[in-house]
Amino acid sequence: AALSSALALLLSLWGAGTAATPPPAILSRGATMTDVLAAASPSDWRPNDPANTLYLELDAGRVIMELAPAFAPQHVANIKRLVAARYFDGLAIARVQDNFVVQWGDPENQRSTAGAARTLPAEFDQPDSPEVKFTRLPDVDGYAPQVGFSNGLPMARDPARKRIWLTHCYGALAVGRDNAPESGGGTELYVVIGHAPRQLDRNTTIVGRVLRGMELLASLPRGAAPMGFYGKREERVAIRSIRLAAELPVEQRTPLEVLRTDTPTFDALLEARRNRRDEWYVRQSGHIDLCNVPIPVRDAGQGATY
Amino acid sequence: AALSSALALLLSLWGAGTAATPPPAILSRGATMTDVLAAASPSDWRPNDPANTLYLELDAGRVIMELAPAFAPQHVANIKRLVAARYFDGLAIARVQDNFVVQWGDPENQRSTAGAARTLPAEFDQPDSPEVKFTRLPDVDGYAPQVGFSNGLPMARDPARKRIWLTHCYGALAVGRDNAPESGGGTELYVVIGHAPRQLDRNTTIVGRVLRGMELLASLPRGAAPMGFYGKREERVAIRSIRLAAELPVEQRTPLEVLRTDTPTFDALLEARRNRRDEWYVRQSGHIDLCNVPIPVRDAGQGATY
Repeated sequence: AALSSALALLLSLWGAGTAATPPPAILSRGATMTDVLAAASPSDWRPNDPANTLYLELDAGRVIMELAPAFAPQHVANIKRLVAARYFDGLAIARVQDNFVVQWGDPENQRSTAGAARTLPAEFDQPDSPEVKFTRLPDVDGYAPQVGFSNGLPMARDPARKRIWLTHCYGALAVGRDNAPESGGGTELYVVIGHAPRQLDRNTTIVGRVLRGMELLASLPRGAAPMGFYGKREERVAIRSIRLAAELPVEQRTPLEVLRTDTPTFDALLEARRNRRDEWYVRQSGHIDLCNVPIPVRDAGQGATY
Repeated sequence: AALSSALALLLSLWGAGTAATPPPAILSRGATMTDVLAAASPSDWRPNDPANTLYLELDAGRVIMELAPAFAPQHVANIKRLVAARYFDGLAIARVQDNFVVQWGDPENQRSTAGAARTLPAEFDQPDSPEVKFTRLPDVDGYAPQVGFSNGLPMARDPARKRIWLTHCYGALAVGRDNAPESGGGTELYVVIGHAPRQLDRNTTIVGRVLRGMELLASLPRGAAPMGFYGKREERVAIRSIRLAAELPVEQRTPLEVLRTDTPTFDALLEARRNRRDEWYVRQSGHIDLCNVPIPVRDAGQGATY
């Protein structure tokens, strides 16, 4: 069988001699995600915004995160102030909890914020607004009346209350806090590395998502202390620096493109993932969970790699 | 604030001076999971079954998996034959795909199965049966008409077609296959390490779940080759052995207890997780996703640690 290598997800590369077996007849033919991306036009992609992109530099490499000023303007502005003040440089990832989050900040609580805020009013959700585009995912969701996407970010909407908020999918970047809702400000950040902890939705301020480098965070050793904290200082993972992409000379940036989520191409991608047409699948789900939708990212100018 | 340390999930251990702030008034009081487990009786727990428990021994430690003969009897029996024949000893984890699966087997496809089958008829789902207990989760699910639990395993049910099947949640153990549905038999196994890939439900045979040691699998370096395969042989993670617990002398076993999923205690746990009463939460979800339900495991005789 011809293999769609990016999508034949559980295929045995070392085979059992059955690779030439024809696909089962119950599998209907149609577009796969590979087909959809191959057919996409340049205008289906947008560049990431250097003024809203952070580079988290670890010994293992660069994690690239895009901020969401449309959803958390005060926190995003404050995180940019912290980054400009080099607040995070030399701090550490101090918590890696399996199937949950990676979290970083100042474990010693000694670093000056150089005028940036330590705490801010919560931005857990906000009023619906015509300025925030919403592409609705028609599939049912248990956690919110409506879910979908805005500019490449998974989000939720309550039309009755006219509120919108970002959701905790894999790769979400958000603000750690203490018990009080207003106790976070961006000095501690976390990224989701497990099954979407949607119970956190509207309990913390989500400020963006990881575009590239999730594997560097998700493969870190888990902390053995309660809540996944590293029990020993030497276990912590050093943060070399966090920089705004726009701060760096162009040649030091990693220009990316994100598939737009408000296009017919993205609708086709949703359908390709809702009902997999790859030869490997014998049954199609007829449904896709918000947090199972991939939002493709590629190197700028590199074509439709994902 | 008094902290429920196992559950105050995003709490800052290095604090911002707000730890004494009273919990928000909108948080209603009720039982947390910690409360539920503290109140559980010994009969709320069951021991894992040594005759259906596998120990995957890695250099990093032991991964403990419980098999599900009620759902995949032929595959479970065949995997036991492979284990008895030492089929897996000295083989390797050859694939770690971020937010998806860890997979192991014989990358060189040279190992004898010593009479065990390489392929079997699929056991993707089966007829509903009074012998398979089903505790329904009332929360809506997009992938199946009904979802719930059977003997500590997340499962789904279609009452119209009278079919039941296990579901791909974090920690699910399942059988890799080629394109043909009958091309798997247990010589290649995978474990889910990311957001539940429910599109795989009824596309592969699930044979159990990981009870302990997920952090050893989920923190492995991701493979850089397509589909997360390791590109170089030396990157592969050696499997020292896989053994059935019942094969080992008692003193070499790791006796565990699994919270029963057919009890009022488990119902209370579901509600404690559906609507978090921990002080940290300011909003309760009113919903829980099947794959967000923890199924607690503890050392036998150690009390309600989780």
